[in-house]
Amino acid sequence: MAKSAVVHGRRNFLRKTAALTGGALAAGGAARAAPLPIPSTNREPGRVIEETAYGMPSKFESHVARRRTDVPKNLQNWSDWSMTPIQYQPGIVTPNGLVFERHHAGTPDIDPKTHRLAIHGMVKQPLTFTMEDLARYPSVSRFYFHECGGNGLNNWNKPQTATAQQTHGLLSGVLWTGVPASTLLEEAGIEPRGKWVLLEGADGAAHARSIPMEKMLDDTLVVYAMNGEALRPENGYPLRAVLPGWEGNTSVKWLRRMKVSDEPWHLRSETARYTDPMPGGKWRQFSMVMECKSVITSPSGGQQLKGPGFYEVTGLAWSGSGKIRTVDVSFDGGRNWREAMLEEPIMDKCLTRFKVGWNWDGSPAILMSRAVDSTGYVQPSMQELQKSRFTVGFIQHHNGIQPWSVNDKGEVRNAIGQA
Amino acid sequence: MAKSAVVHGRRNFLRKTAALTGGALAAGGAARAAPLPIPSTNREPGRVIEETAYGMPSKFESHVARRRTDVPKNLQNWSDWSMTPIQYQPGIVTPNGLVFERHHAGTPDIDPKTHRLAIHGMVKQPLTFTMEDLARYPSVSRFYFHECGGNGLNNWNKPQTATAQQTHGLLSGVLWTGVPASTLLEEAGIEPRGKWVLLEGADGAAHARSIPMEKMLDDTLVVYAMNGEALRPENGYPLRAVLPGWEGNTSVKWLRRMKVSDEPWHLRSETARYTDPMPGGKWRQFSMVMECKSVITSPSGGQQLKGPGFYEVTGLAWSGSGKIRTVDVSFDGGRNWREAMLEEPIMDKCLTRFKVGWNWDGSPAILMSRAVDSTGYVQPSMQELQKSRFTVGFIQHHNGIQPWSVNDKGEVRNAIGQA
Repeated sequence: MAKSAVVHGRRNFLRKTAALTGGALAAGGAARAAPLPIPSTNREPGRVIEETAYGMPSKFESHVARRRTDVPKNLQNWSDWSMTPIQYQPGIVTPNGLVFERHHAGTPDIDPKTHRLAIHGMVKQPLTFTMEDLARYPSVSRFYFHECGGNGLNNWNKPQTATAQQTHGLLSGVLWTGVPASTLLEEAGIEPRGKWVLLEGADGAAHARSIPMEKMLDDTLVVYAMNGEALRPENGYPLRAVLPGWEGNTSVKWLRRMKVSDEPWHLRSETARYTDPMPGGKWRQFSMVMECKSVITSPSGGQQLKGPGFYEVTGLAWSGSGKIRTVDVSFDGGRNWREAMLEEPIMDKCLTRFKVGWNWDGSPAILMSRAVDSTGYVQPSMQELQKSRFTVGFIQHHNGIQPWSVNDKGEVRNAIGQA
Repeated sequence: MAKSAVVHGRRNFLRKTAALTGGALAAGGAARAAPLPIPSTNREPGRVIEETAYGMPSKFESHVARRRTDVPKNLQNWSDWSMTPIQYQPGIVTPNGLVFERHHAGTPDIDPKTHRLAIHGMVKQPLTFTMEDLARYPSVSRFYFHECGGNGLNNWNKPQTATAQQTHGLLSGVLWTGVPASTLLEEAGIEPRGKWVLLEGADGAAHARSIPMEKMLDDTLVVYAMNGEALRPENGYPLRAVLPGWEGNTSVKWLRRMKVSDEPWHLRSETARYTDPMPGGKWRQFSMVMECKSVITSPSGGQQLKGPGFYEVTGLAWSGSGKIRTVDVSFDGGRNWREAMLEEPIMDKCLTRFKVGWNWDGSPAILMSRAVDSTGYVQPSMQELQKSRFTVGFIQHHNGIQPWSVNDKGEVRNAIGQA
């Protein structure tokens, strides 16, 4: 009875999508004219719920995993990371099981009953908090993007890795819940000299960062939950800092103390790491805002187009300075650009989903996206970034435009350095 | 060095929260004056990432689980359900592992490679779709609340269950991703006589519902992903319908066909179940909009207040007819009401989080919340609902106001029928 959606019903679909995209489209695909058989699952009962007190993905989705696949095996692997498979993630929220993570000495398993947060240093009254204490304070829940300062570290002159997970997967979207850091700091009473705050974790590396008081009082959160449940162990359980829009390294996990001082500490992550080489041989410190950036997640490296026709091109855009204002997409390596649709809600310092229809004619193409944020800042080309910062073989805070090439077989590849 | 946040730093905290709540507050809690010891986790490396390709909650969070605890054990348990622990869920998104589920013959494990969706009946051209076909169509991602028509079924005259999970946990908040049903139906071409659509699942019960064409073309989605990843098996993997704001039973899971007809089918879920007794002995069919409702999730039944002082009272509000406009909270069983703060983003047919500060003086109290939606509809009291619909010992589409009592020991209990 039934025939393919694509071959026989194309007229309506074309009319509709043409209205959305302003172009002539073809949906593509193969005819299936056979009657629809009743599947075996309609003839037998399924699994019962005792197995699903905490649910897990289908066994058919095991390819959707968080992993580090872009560098050789790290044999000691206590300082390591795993990346979000953003090429499989629709929408703007990353499921907790797939939120990227970076750690410097493995993941501790902390008992929330014994965990404490201390505020000390240049404060009028040092304080300690239990997790129960923190739960008593007025809370906020906010959607923010979360990105490692090293996202795309080695992805600047030639393809080192294949997929969007590998080039851009130190990126997630999370609804964080916690207490504004300002509430806790103001309760301790900041001395007038207090201009910087040390955040330190309870992990084996005692990872720490120096944060300007201005950021602490602006929008920093002391967070105990993500996407509707307690933090996951590798994401900081039971307590972490979240510094919206700033490099992930500053959002110290397993947070155990905040010490107020009059100057920064110049810690390893502020000198030897997470700093930017500049023209003239100097290194820029404390460049912690993650600037406006975007990436096409579908089609993206490693994917395969199934013949000419209509494709929805979609991706993510974000800015540590505000909201996304526009995203333009090019299909010809940057010569022509078309404005993409931005999907609501569009929130401050949050992942924003963009979409644009594309009628692939079967010939080679290079796809790129370019985001502009609410301050007017335009995501730079790789060439623009190269002028100042690609001098040492890797790059922190890399927000250059990512090209993906499509060849005449429909194979999608990382085209970094080629457009 | 450090002392308790609560005893010694109270002045600032009170000033801040008083501004938020307009009342005099006391934070409560116990002093901790000892120095902060360095925890053992600071002295040793943690777990490595091979274990976390797909992350799971901390072992200390095993009490946060989806379960059905409010009725005697169902021995055959193929027709069963499990409920979201909303008392532990901050924000407006439910993590996928905890999204409630209801099934009529267990959970099938469907291979997406063999799954098909058929559109047939009164259409110009019957169509079948593979999952790959569906991925080609323009997609949308939308945050919606999801609620079973039977949520709170037996919670109307006296407390049968203790916790918010048991009284209101057939409720979740999800970012769904899929294709508008209108795109697919219009591609098949709806005949002018076609006014109803049968949705049928590939599960052992072949669960099915009759849906008016108007709803199908308005905002119904054919969904393949939830909260940034593929549907979970028990939530319909690989494909389901989502009818925003309508009783969950209509959002048919494991969707395998949509058949267009000129009248409804009068299926079991439209006659013997999911219908409403009305005065005069008649039963109302097809009352599928979930009307405006709210519940306080903290403090809620089974929880324990730790002495007088400041508490953040928070909960969820939602409406199948639009956005939440206001939520009022009473602390005295409904005599006086105070407007709560609504947390952004406030979205159509989506969970909305409300919060209000409360200074508990240690004496017995009854807490209630009352929501109003963007149409002006006011959540009814139990007494108002009772006049028309509580006639047969249970109630579908129960959106009455939920009271929680607090006694002088701080114990919080289900006070249904008492206020």
